[in-house]
Amino acid sequence: MNIAVLGVATTKFGELWDTSPRVLVREAVNGALADAQVALEDIDAIYVGNMLSGMLGNQENLGAFYAEELGITAASTKVEGACASGGLAVHQGVLGILSGLYRRVLVIGVEKMTDHKPEHVASALMGAGSDGERIAGLTFPGLYALMAHACMQKYAITESDMAAVAVKNHYHASLNTYAHFSGGAGSRSAGQMTIEHVMQSPYVADPLKLLDCSPISDGAAAVILGEAAKTTRKSTVHIVGSSVATDTLDLADRSGITSISATVRAAQGAYKQAKLAARDIDVAEAHDCFTIAELMALVDLGFSDGMKKAAQQVGQGAFTLNSSKKLVVNPSGGLKACGHPVGATGVKQIVEITQQLRGEAGKRQAANAHIGLTHNVGGSGAVAVVHLLRS
Amino acid sequence: MNIAVLGVATTKFGELWDTSPRVLVREAVNGALADAQVALEDIDAIYVGNMLSGMLGNQENLGAFYAEELGITAASTKVEGACASGGLAVHQGVLGILSGLYRRVLVIGVEKMTDHKPEHVASALMGAGSDGERIAGLTFPGLYALMAHACMQKYAITESDMAAVAVKNHYHASLNTYAHFSGGAGSRSAGQMTIEHVMQSPYVADPLKLLDCSPISDGAAAVILGEAAKTTRKSTVHIVGSSVATDTLDLADRSGITSISATVRAAQGAYKQAKLAARDIDVAEAHDCFTIAELMALVDLGFSDGMKKAAQQVGQGAFTLNSSKKLVVNPSGGLKACGHPVGATGVKQIVEITQQLRGEAGKRQAANAHIGLTHNVGGSGAVAVVHLLRS
Repeated sequence: MNIAVLGVATTKFGELWDTSPRVLVREAVNGALADAQVALEDIDAIYVGNMLSGMLGNQENLGAFYAEELGITAASTKVEGACASGGLAVHQGVLGILSGLYRRVLVIGVEKMTDHKPEHVASALMGAGSDGERIAGLTFPGLYALMAHACMQKYAITESDMAAVAVKNHYHASLNTYAHFSGGAGSRSAGQMTIEHVMQSPYVADPLKLLDCSPISDGAAAVILGEAAKTTRKSTVHIVGSSVATDTLDLADRSGITSISATVRAAQGAYKQAKLAARDIDVAEAHDCFTIAELMALVDLGFSDGMKKAAQQVGQGAFTLNSSKKLVVNPSGGLKACGHPVGATGVKQIVEITQQLRGEAGKRQAANAHIGLTHNVGGSGAVAVVHLLRS
Repeated sequence: MNIAVLGVATTKFGELWDTSPRVLVREAVNGALADAQVALEDIDAIYVGNMLSGMLGNQENLGAFYAEELGITAASTKVEGACASGGLAVHQGVLGILSGLYRRVLVIGVEKMTDHKPEHVASALMGAGSDGERIAGLTFPGLYALMAHACMQKYAITESDMAAVAVKNHYHASLNTYAHFSGGAGSRSAGQMTIEHVMQSPYVADPLKLLDCSPISDGAAAVILGEAAKTTRKSTVHIVGSSVATDTLDLADRSGITSISATVRAAQGAYKQAKLAARDIDVAEAHDCFTIAELMALVDLGFSDGMKKAAQQVGQGAFTLNSSKKLVVNPSGGLKACGHPVGATGVKQIVEITQQLRGEAGKRQAANAHIGLTHNVGGSGAVAVVHLLRS
C-alpha cells in the first residue's frame, strides 16, 4: 500500500462558540487544497467522518451537505463509527484510491459539540455503546473508569500513573497553536500542568478525574489523498498501512477489559501491510480519550512491554518531545489536550503525523521522524482504526 | 469493473411489528451467506447502510453493532446518505473489493421505522433535507409535490399519469412475496389496484395522494461481493458499473426541479464504466419513493425520451412484466409497493436485479434479462447512486 497524502489542514480545536460546522469545514478544506496545490474541481470523491450531526442537529445526508457547501457535485458519503468516524473515513479514502476509481479523494472530519447542552452530548455519545450500557446509566467516563479500575487491580498502576499521561499531553498541547488547551489566552496554561493539578481535580467517574478526561471540542480537519505516482512534492508522506477491526459494543461481553483487542488486531493488520513493527515507529497519535486509554494503547500498539512498564516509561518522561526515547506519542496533545471533536479526531491524527513526517510541526516537532502511526477508537473499543505513514 | 455478486437475500419488507433490526439483519445475512456458500469467517469487511438508527434509536457505531450481532470482528463501517445509504454501502463494498484489500465484503441495508411515531419518522427523514426546508415545515411528500407540480406544468403530465406508475408497481408487488404490499393477508390486495383507486385516495401533499407515496417500512437486505475470478457459480451476476453523484440538498438551490441532475450524472458515470447505454438495460429497479420520482427517473436514466413520452409509455403498459417493450422497471414493486425501509432499499435493489439476471425471480421474472440497473436516491436528489449488473 502506498497512498500519497497530498494535502492536510486542521482548524483550531476548542470551544468555538462563534463559528459553525460549515465554516470549520471550509477552513480545513481550503487549507488542505492549498497545501496539496489541488483545485476543488480535481476532487473525485469526498468522505465525511462525523458521528453526531443526526442526533444533535437533525442533519443527515452529510456527504451531500458538505459537497454542496464546497460547491461541487462529486461523489460524497458520510462515514460513521462513533469516535472512530474520522479514521474510518480516511480508510474509505484509502480504498477509493486503491480501487482505481478515484484519483483524488478529500477526507473531512468534523464535529460541533459545544452548541448543545452537555447532558445531551453525553447522552448522544452513548449512541456508541450498547443498549445495556445505556439502560444502566453508564456514560463514557464511567466505561473507561471500569477499565481503569480493572487495569489498576491487574497491573498495580496508580492514579498518579494516569495523571502523568495528562501532564505529557498538556505539555505537548502547549506547543500546538491548534490545540483546545494550547496555553493561549482564556485557557488553562497547559504547559504548567503538573501531576498535582491532575490529582487535585474533581472526580468525574472514580478513578478518572476531570483532568484525566478529554474535553468536549469543536473542530474540523481535512486530508487529500492521491496515487503515489501522481505527487510532485519531494517530501510527500505516504500511507503504507490502513487497518480496521471490531469488537463487542458492550464491555461486559469481552473476554477482558484491560486491553482493547480491536486495537491489537488493527495494529497487527497495519504492521503486516506495511512490513513494519512497533519498534519502527518514530511518532504516534494514539486515542487517549482518557488517560487510561493511552496506557492501554501503549501496550496494545506494541510500544510498551506491559502496562506497568508503560506507566513507568511515561512517568520517566518517555514518549515526550525531546526525551531520550525516540518514540513521541501524541505530540499534538492528543484527544486529551489537543481536543476531541469526535468525527474530526481520526482525520486530525493524519494531519498531525503528516506534518511531523514532513518536518513541519514547528515547536512540537519530533526529532528524526520518518515513520508514524495513528490510532483511532470508536466507543469503548468496539472499533479501532490504525494507519501507518512514512516519509 | 467486474465485481462478483456472490450471494443475495432480503427479508420480507413491511410493518414488521413483531421483530427487531437485529433479527432482520441476521435473517438477511444468513440468507446471503447460504446463497453465496460462504462462511461468515470468510467475510473481510462489512458495510452497513442505515439512516435513522441514531435519530430514532439513539444507536450509532452501527458497523460494530452488527459485526457483534453476527459474531465476527471484521472491519465494519456504517455508511449514511439518507435514502441512498444502501446504494452507497454497496458502492463502498465495490471499492473494497477493487482495492484488493478485501476479498469478500458483506453489505447490509437495514431500517426499522414502524417502532416510532409517524411524526417522529417524518421529522427524522427531513434530516436528509436542508435547514431551510426543515424550517419551512416541508416534509418529503411536500418536496416531491413541488417537483410534481413543476413537471405537470412543464410537460403537461397529469395526476392520472402518475397514478399509472402506482398501478404498475403494485401489480409487480402482488407477485413478490417479499413485498410490503404483496397482496397477502392483511394488506391491500395489490394486484387489483387501479387508476381509480389511486385517484380516489386522499391527498398527502397535492398533487400526491396516499397511493402515490411509498410506505414507511421495516426490512433488511444483504449482498456479498467478491472478486470476479473467485466465483464458482456459472451464472454469477457481476457489477460492471458503480457511480455516485451529488447535488444541492435544497430544491430551491437547483437550476431546475423537473429532473434530478445527480441521477443523470451518476447514470452517465456508470454507463461509461460499463460501456453500456440505456437501450441495453433489460430490467431496472428505480427510486420511486413517489410516483413522480419514477417518471423523472425514466427520463434521467435515459429510458424515455421526455417525460410526456414516459407517462404515455407507462400508461400503455410499458415497463410492466410481460409487456411487449423489453425493459421492465421495478419488478419488485419498487419503493412504492415493495416498500421503503430507507437504508435497506439500495441493497434490496441489488438483490432484486441479481435474482432477475439469474432467472430466479419466480412469478415476477422479466423475460430475457441479461443486463440490469439499480438507481437509489438520497433526499430529494442530493445524492444518487447507479449500479449496472450483467449475467
